[in-house]
Amino acid sequence: MRAAQHGKRVVIVEKHLLGGTCLHQGCIPTKSLLESSKLYERVKHMEEFGIEVNQDSLFFNVAKAFERKKAIVNQLYQGIQYLIKKNKITLIQGHGHLVGKPKHFEIGIENGSTESEQTIFSNHVILATGSRPNIPKGITIDGIKLFTSDEILAHPLRPDHITIIGAGAIGLEFACYFQQLGSAVRIVESEDRLAPLEDEEISRQIGSIFDKRGIETMPGYQLLVEHIEHVEGEPMTYTLQDRNGEKSMHQTDAILFAIGRKNNVSALGLTSVGLADEAAFLQTNAYMETDVSGLYAVGDIAGSYQLAHVATQQALIAADTICGISTLPYQPERVARCTYTHPEIASVGLTEEQANAAGYDIKVGKFPLHFNGRSLIHGDSEGFIKMIVDKKTDMLLGTHMIGQGATELIAMSGFAIFMEGTAWEMGMNVYPHPSISEIFGEAAMAVSGMAIHS
Amino acid sequence: MRAAQHGKRVVIVEKHLLGGTCLHQGCIPTKSLLESSKLYERVKHMEEFGIEVNQDSLFFNVAKAFERKKAIVNQLYQGIQYLIKKNKITLIQGHGHLVGKPKHFEIGIENGSTESEQTIFSNHVILATGSRPNIPKGITIDGIKLFTSDEILAHPLRPDHITIIGAGAIGLEFACYFQQLGSAVRIVESEDRLAPLEDEEISRQIGSIFDKRGIETMPGYQLLVEHIEHVEGEPMTYTLQDRNGEKSMHQTDAILFAIGRKNNVSALGLTSVGLADEAAFLQTNAYMETDVSGLYAVGDIAGSYQLAHVATQQALIAADTICGISTLPYQPERVARCTYTHPEIASVGLTEEQANAAGYDIKVGKFPLHFNGRSLIHGDSEGFIKMIVDKKTDMLLGTHMIGQGATELIAMSGFAIFMEGTAWEMGMNVYPHPSISEIFGEAAMAVSGMAIHS
Repeated sequence: MRAAQHGKRVVIVEKHLLGGTCLHQGCIPTKSLLESSKLYERVKHMEEFGIEVNQDSLFFNVAKAFERKKAIVNQLYQGIQYLIKKNKITLIQGHGHLVGKPKHFEIGIENGSTESEQTIFSNHVILATGSRPNIPKGITIDGIKLFTSDEILAHPLRPDHITIIGAGAIGLEFACYFQQLGSAVRIVESEDRLAPLEDEEISRQIGSIFDKRGIETMPGYQLLVEHIEHVEGEPMTYTLQDRNGEKSMHQTDAILFAIGRKNNVSALGLTSVGLADEAAFLQTNAYMETDVSGLYAVGDIAGSYQLAHVATQQALIAADTICGISTLPYQPERVARCTYTHPEIASVGLTEEQANAAGYDIKVGKFPLHFNGRSLIHGDSEGFIKMIVDKKTDMLLGTHMIGQGATELIAMSGFAIFMEGTAWEMGMNVYPHPSISEIFGEAAMAVSGMAIHS
Repeated sequence: MRAAQHGKRVVIVEKHLLGGTCLHQGCIPTKSLLESSKLYERVKHMEEFGIEVNQDSLFFNVAKAFERKKAIVNQLYQGIQYLIKKNKITLIQGHGHLVGKPKHFEIGIENGSTESEQTIFSNHVILATGSRPNIPKGITIDGIKLFTSDEILAHPLRPDHITIIGAGAIGLEFACYFQQLGSAVRIVESEDRLAPLEDEEISRQIGSIFDKRGIETMPGYQLLVEHIEHVEGEPMTYTLQDRNGEKSMHQTDAILFAIGRKNNVSALGLTSVGLADEAAFLQTNAYMETDVSGLYAVGDIAGSYQLAHVATQQALIAADTICGISTLPYQPERVARCTYTHPEIASVGLTEEQANAAGYDIKVGKFPLHFNGRSLIHGDSEGFIKMIVDKKTDMLLGTHMIGQGATELIAMSGFAIFMEGTAWEMGMNVYPHPSISEIFGEAAMAVSGMAIHS
């Protein structure tokens, strides 16, 4: 769309559906379901707010939540189709692959039958083929007892017990969803803590919150895939191994594999333009151009965070660059990472550990949500914010938050890093009262021991 | 607290309760009640989310919502009392007034009995006496049929019909609260639109949303206070007059006056230090110092926006200045104004009209919430955002938003104005997906016709 706005003729080649994983099997459907399950959770505690209802009559209709999810996906899908037309972009349905670059790039497109193979030529190519769920060797996903996120999102499911392998964003979100639904949940993570990529304090807190809710958290455990046994009509059994090599047997009704995603980098004809075919991702410069001039890669396959907004940012950069518009290099330090659990987790920039490792002399400012008026008003004041600041320059290096509002407010810290803002400037910004946003000011002031409300 | 952090000895003289209007009769109690009534509204539409309940059993217990409000106020009140102690600040209960400034300021403090009058001396004085609801001449507030916000917040009330005079933030919030509760609401505003201080488009939209909900909106009408008649046990009658002088009679059970607030500037002994006693507010420089060296005024009485966060910002500036710490001048263009209706309204900086009037050549970028994924997911996608940008410099002049999340996200635009950010920079900031914050990026790109999703 950006290239079209700049006046380029644009063709999109897509094998599945416009919108990709994010719209059809990722962000949008998962957050829709989480919205339903979170509201269900909230309703159970609404008497305190003065809202009385016959709680015995309360029922979560999973099928209905799925219908709503489908309707939202569909509405956004129609929006994208409209935008593609509006921007006069040609959509070709099929699997595209590079054939060579005699002068322009030659792209072959297959859509099932050999007769309908097409060839197009283009001065510039942006590869944005995304990723798919990682499946351990030896496992056959059946969508009945063994799942990836794709199968979980395909049909309403309410298992009595579910085991989730992997406690990254996807695993945590599904753990939260199923627990709110009423399923018993066990979450297994080979690293020594949940959310292992987050700041350690944040990660410890989500662990203890999940524990309190009755989610069985098993960090430091690995699934032995060869020991999964399932007999029709009975619960599955499987074996976990801890870090000392000790094995234990467990039962469950469903196993969800949330162990990362694999980039779609094969069958793209990369060797035809002189690129290796077997790397896990495509190497680019900061303007998303590969070693082949005119060939760009954006999104998951470009090897940075596998997030929709990274893909968007990289796509804008690539399109601007192709069109000769002055733009920015891609800067991963400005990218917020969000987990839509309850409470939410969001972070941008360096963690305390990373900042220390990078040799910064740092100051840290923290502020808890339970000193914040609006969090109390919402009845949801678990969590805290933490800011990492360079002692020498007072510049913000990172922000880490667990608590409601985190996924919305984190963009402000990203902007502060972008603008090379200081803790002092963030502290002297005006935050409306009452709002959760005030904690950004408090944490920024806390960096120099000057928080007001703690 | 800031002065104490800087090592000053500090005395607070307070006639009522620490925390003032905001905590006891303003922001906190009103937002607590609105949280309850908003949740009640949401619960009525939760079937779509897959949450089923016997809706006939649904009941809003106003007394319980009030109890919760009281508990929240109390928790925050205890917090402030703790912080005052922790910062070793002396609290003197009573009415303080300036007696003179022989060398230091002399302050007399009365607390009811003449025997207990105290005198203290201080190098610096910060006046922060706040404001009280404005009451039209000839009206006696009885807390039975005639109310200001103070009386509404004192006791649970569920009138069959309520008339609200004044459609500023306070009037709009109570209109929303009572409508959600189930009362019939009429809102009367002498200006030609609701929210007359907001950008005209925003103000028109809240008007049409209120109309759709069945709130009777009467912009361009004035209450003739001398024509209010109430007989015990019967509804009140009153007369409104439109802009052509035409009169009409109306009935109601309660009238809430929300026609602004009057600053507490009398009985402060201002003349004893050479200041006039009768102005509507105290004149200060940008560091909050009055014409009398060492005498500062902050908050409502300083004549800027009557908002808690303005008072906080001004207090920090005054305290820093008194302590010789380099600080910022007070900059009203950075102050967000928030209305906690549903949908919320928030704005910062100049409106389109103001920017034009100030002689700027402007560009405007808009983006509707119903193109935003997360708003659809929340099931709450009414509203839009509008950014006003200086054509010459691309710098942000103002942001106006109506829609959920507005009161939290507006701080980011305040920060952008503070940092002298451009629309291009706001457009190239990374906003997590899905989040409402994305609309800030879209609107910023829309300024140059480059929004992606519209």
